[in-house]
Amino acid sequence: MGKSGMRNSSGSSMSSGEEKPSNGHSAVRKINPDLVISEIKHGARPGDTYVRLHRAHARAFRKVGPGHFVAMPASNVPATTFERVYRAIKRVLVGRPLETAEEVHERLTKVKGLAVFGSDAISSSAYATEATLMILMVAGNQALGITFYTSIAVAIMFAIIAFSYRQTIYAYPQGGGSYRVSRENLGTLAGLVAAAALLIDYVLTVAVSIAAGSAAVLSAFIASGYGEQIGMLDRTLPHPFNLNVLVSLFFIGLITLGNLRGIRESGTIFAIPTYLFIASLSTVLLVGLFKAFTGTLYPPEPPPILPVTEPLGVWLILRAFSAGAVAMSGTEAIADGVPAFQPPESKNAAITLTAMALLLGSFFLGVSFLATRMGLVPGEETIISQVARAALGTSLPYYVFQIATMGILVIAANTAFADFPRLASILARDNFMPHQFLYRGDRLAFSTGIIALGSIAALLVTVFAGRVDSLIHLYAVGVFLAFTLSNTGMVVRWQKIRGAHWQTSRLINGTGAVLSAITLLIIATTKFTLGAWIVIVLIPIIVSFFHLVHTHYTRVAEQLRILPDQLPPQRIEQLVIVPIDDVNYASLRAMAFARTICSDVVVLHIALNAEHAEKVRQKMKLYAPDLKLILVDSPLRAFVRPLVSYVDAVHSQYPDAFVTIVLPEFITAHWWEQFLHNRTAARLQREFEKHPNVAVVLVPYLLEK
Amino acid sequence: MGKSGMRNSSGSSMSSGEEKPSNGHSAVRKINPDLVISEIKHGARPGDTYVRLHRAHARAFRKVGPGHFVAMPASNVPATTFERVYRAIKRVLVGRPLETAEEVHERLTKVKGLAVFGSDAISSSAYATEATLMILMVAGNQALGITFYTSIAVAIMFAIIAFSYRQTIYAYPQGGGSYRVSRENLGTLAGLVAAAALLIDYVLTVAVSIAAGSAAVLSAFIASGYGEQIGMLDRTLPHPFNLNVLVSLFFIGLITLGNLRGIRESGTIFAIPTYLFIASLSTVLLVGLFKAFTGTLYPPEPPPILPVTEPLGVWLILRAFSAGAVAMSGTEAIADGVPAFQPPESKNAAITLTAMALLLGSFFLGVSFLATRMGLVPGEETIISQVARAALGTSLPYYVFQIATMGILVIAANTAFADFPRLASILARDNFMPHQFLYRGDRLAFSTGIIALGSIAALLVTVFAGRVDSLIHLYAVGVFLAFTLSNTGMVVRWQKIRGAHWQTSRLINGTGAVLSAITLLIIATTKFTLGAWIVIVLIPIIVSFFHLVHTHYTRVAEQLRILPDQLPPQRIEQLVIVPIDDVNYASLRAMAFARTICSDVVVLHIALNAEHAEKVRQKMKLYAPDLKLILVDSPLRAFVRPLVSYVDAVHSQYPDAFVTIVLPEFITAHWWEQFLHNRTAARLQREFEKHPNVAVVLVPYLLEK
Repeated sequence: MGKSGMRNSSGSSMSSGEEKPSNGHSAVRKINPDLVISEIKHGARPGDTYVRLHRAHARAFRKVGPGHFVAMPASNVPATTFERVYRAIKRVLVGRPLETAEEVHERLTKVKGLAVFGSDAISSSAYATEATLMILMVAGNQALGITFYTSIAVAIMFAIIAFSYRQTIYAYPQGGGSYRVSRENLGTLAGLVAAAALLIDYVLTVAVSIAAGSAAVLSAFIASGYGEQIGMLDRTLPHPFNLNVLVSLFFIGLITLGNLRGIRESGTIFAIPTYLFIASLSTVLLVGLFKAFTGTLYPPEPPPILPVTEPLGVWLILRAFSAGAVAMSGTEAIADGVPAFQPPESKNAAITLTAMALLLGSFFLGVSFLATRMGLVPGEETIISQVARAALGTSLPYYVFQIATMGILVIAANTAFADFPRLASILARDNFMPHQFLYRGDRLAFSTGIIALGSIAALLVTVFAGRVDSLIHLYAVGVFLAFTLSNTGMVVRWQKIRGAHWQTSRLINGTGAVLSAITLLIIATTKFTLGAWIVIVLIPIIVSFFHLVHTHYTRVAEQLRILPDQLPPQRIEQLVIVPIDDVNYASLRAMAFARTICSDVVVLHIALNAEHAEKVRQKMKLYAPDLKLILVDSPLRAFVRPLVSYVDAVHSQYPDAFVTIVLPEFITAHWWEQFLHNRTAARLQREFEKHPNVAVVLVPYLLEK
Repeated sequence: MGKSGMRNSSGSSMSSGEEKPSNGHSAVRKINPDLVISEIKHGARPGDTYVRLHRAHARAFRKVGPGHFVAMPASNVPATTFERVYRAIKRVLVGRPLETAEEVHERLTKVKGLAVFGSDAISSSAYATEATLMILMVAGNQALGITFYTSIAVAIMFAIIAFSYRQTIYAYPQGGGSYRVSRENLGTLAGLVAAAALLIDYVLTVAVSIAAGSAAVLSAFIASGYGEQIGMLDRTLPHPFNLNVLVSLFFIGLITLGNLRGIRESGTIFAIPTYLFIASLSTVLLVGLFKAFTGTLYPPEPPPILPVTEPLGVWLILRAFSAGAVAMSGTEAIADGVPAFQPPESKNAAITLTAMALLLGSFFLGVSFLATRMGLVPGEETIISQVARAALGTSLPYYVFQIATMGILVIAANTAFADFPRLASILARDNFMPHQFLYRGDRLAFSTGIIALGSIAALLVTVFAGRVDSLIHLYAVGVFLAFTLSNTGMVVRWQKIRGAHWQTSRLINGTGAVLSAITLLIIATTKFTLGAWIVIVLIPIIVSFFHLVHTHYTRVAEQLRILPDQLPPQRIEQLVIVPIDDVNYASLRAMAFARTICSDVVVLHIALNAEHAEKVRQKMKLYAPDLKLILVDSPLRAFVRPLVSYVDAVHSQYPDAFVTIVLPEFITAHWWEQFLHNRTAARLQREFEKHPNVAVVLVPYLLEK
């Protein structure tokens, strides 16, 4: 394994059996880097002396051609205990590493597609009504009745938006995300604004869905009466470690891990909670409507009497509409993921979109109707939990429904976990995000994006203490900004392409764009002071960041791109400096290294002690008479700075030369022993780290005991 | 300043005006490292092209001969803002850096010698009586009278020890520290035990003296009545940040800084507080004795009635004696510092020792007599403060005395600050301590030792909450262990040398050795559970540490020492590997660097993407057809581990070869831009850090914008 120190290698005979030239300058032996793999039984070319490759190394690489190998899993074994433990934990959590070629693209049926891409939108029905009620509460119990009407307005909006997205699906069968549609039709800036809005929204989707999911679990606890016994349950208290936050963080961790495992396209896992939710919420609504029309619908507890702190006015109604509009989040997902559907992709996606729109519309209206009918007031228990209890009683089906709610909200977060890393990687490929977002982990998922999303969402949930309603304010701006840009982009596109029925298409997308823009304005105005300003401030910051990154990558690429008429010289003119403390085996080894770079090596001794310097001079005469020794007395006992100054001084005489500083460095036998030596080598390496024309080489010398 | 990147240097004409060879392999130009200092007006040898050395560089080095320079202050200017600020602060605190040649050795008169070396011992009189009283308190007010008699016993002991040290002074005019005397006469182990005991004691001297000094200040506060108004004054409470601790830490910081400035031998500074203390304590004692014999001596406050919790027995008396024996600490200092006296050194030192012994003896007995006479009880106010108030009243002279007490206690700590770093540096020179303790700072002081001492003492004062009495328990063991070893060493020495009066000398040192040993036994037994066990446990640990360090340095020296019949080869057989991501200017520069090391360069591309790998292969054919390209496909997308495995595999075929890994590295124009690139280069450098036959070179490539 090449562990023998230099001193040994000169003392012992060489294992390859080659004759060692006896003169000082050993002839340079040709080394064959084209690994001799074990199936080759003997040296192929005469004159080459091969040592048969050790079995372990032979297993590490499979030879596929001359100078071409494939790294086998054996080449990837961990070297340290720390790495071994890290990999073992990672393997348990994330699974065995997958080869790049193992990637499979599952095509989704309509049923699975609804689960994968629709869960985000459908899950909004679990919290959209509550968000509206929270706004209207200030105007007293009477005002809560408005909720049903704002819900109808939202549902109409939603129908139009969904219909306009059907257009996009057919126009962009390769996937029509807002970034793509906007950038292609409205220009880069519009694309980046849409991308920034979407990235913010994906983060908020995770935070809102997970917080709502954990609220569902806790509501079930409260309803069951166990809630009182556990402290920390008050969702309205901003305690950063209340139970809601802890449960949310647990789910975020779970989803992050799941996505690092690469579950993002396994539709079956998604199908179960999605359809369980669809089935159980349908049951709740049907039973509830039946009870309502038979006059047997009662709230589980009598709703509290609310003090009127604000009169019901246009402003409040607009705010309630804004709050309900969050139901529309996630509508884009299907248009984004068209290529994941089975062929005919666009048609299947469009059918799925329609089904999703119908389900969400009826769910949202149904919940709003029942809640208004009973005059429910949001409190510790969520509205949807109250509706379910009113319909089903605190029975087993109720608990099943709560679990399904939690399930779909968690799954909804998962949609963002598929979308955020994908969008980030597209932006990274377009040089707008750091290239690290292109990195694919052990399971071929975009690990950087997944971890970034999980971390930011966890931070948000903690900072906002898991209060869904405060997060929702941040949420809707991005959704409607993306809708507006995407639909406007489609209008421009129809204008340009003028395909069949282009005028109808333009009308549909135009209506979508105008309505989205109006909603966006309403939301931005009504929610401005409630947190929407954060998003409005954040978007230009993120877009500036995209631009900075893009400028950097473009400049780097320009500076690195080889111009055939500006080829650099094949060799670098080098000045090699070997700073030494003393002449010993370690420094002789550094000098031997230096000689291989350049025949004109300067050995530099910064002299703190004249007597010792004289000894160094004499030993140099004896053991390295061919090298030029420079002594620099340092009366102030400084070492690093005079050395740097000397290098600068030499450099100023030969500005084009490259200086290589070759430093002997001990490798001590025990870790603690390194503290018995001064760490000048490391210090010098740091010193020259940023110097464009200086390299520092540490030539190791192994202390064997 | 050599800032031009490689691409520029090929594009622009070279500033030296030299013709660039047009073939690929540029001829190696001889570089003259023997700086052309400005007085040389033109190139000395024909064919050399010099650029006149920039004025800044010319000022940095003074040429004293061919290849021999002196680094001038201009070579030592800080490079970064951080370094500039650090140096400015250091300069204010510590002073301007001194050149090695500026060191002066002041010789001390007897008067100054007493101040420099005697203050530690004399200052003991400020706390020794109190330490005895603290022990006897448990037996009630009556028992406190014993204090005077145990003080007489201590004083007799002290006379004998002092007398025996006179012997050492004459025997070791070059300075007879316990480490030296014990090591020379009793062997290395005894020397190291003495050294360990002394190092512990120096730390404790600082902690005890400073804590007592700050107690003196606070006692004055309490006496003046202001004490009650300030909280945090209770010295007996283990609050880590009570005022006593804070004042102590302030003093420790001050003395540490002072010693880093190099004040250690400036006798005048020491003389003032020492003689002020001698004068004012003499006044206190004379007035007190006068009052005592005229029957007008009264305690400042009536002493409290103490409950009897333990009967007065032999054990308690022995413990009281042990407590009083701390008065003897610091006796060694004069014997240690003989060479610092004016000639005749030994005689002057001996006279100073006698004067010191007489002063300390009478002070200690005087304070004990007055305290016993008045039946004083130690409490918040120190005993010596109570004695002074009884003699002088709460008058101006009393405050002067308190300030003098504080002054001499701080000065006493300073003795340890001279001794600890000196002993540590002697141990380091003998390879028993890390060589860092040999390092002399800007002001020629042994900075490492000073900072180590200050830090440990500060830690101790904080942990023990500034309670002097608890620290004193740790203290006396080391003092008497050093006495015993040193005197035993002298006995052995007399036995060997048999000079004039050797039998008398042996008798004196023998008596000193036996009495010290007995006292040591008493102290170790009576104080064992009170903390002496810590010292007893610590000494073997420290001695083991000395041995470990010694073994390491000896082994390293053995492994590095050049044996003329085992000279290593002049050149290292190298395999140069250049791992590249892509073929661009940065990687071409790395390849150019690699070519200067070895004609047989392997360019390694770990391929994550077959398409990109093909591009790399084609560009290599175009731009570096002379280098062998090895492609390693990495289906698991791992980069570092397969690279390491490849290096190992090549190494296993040529175990004697040295592998140099040359990596292109960007230097970004702005610091934040580095986060936009993966940091593989740094990662690989860490990976091979401990490999004895691999060096990693990062070849910088400056991104200029």
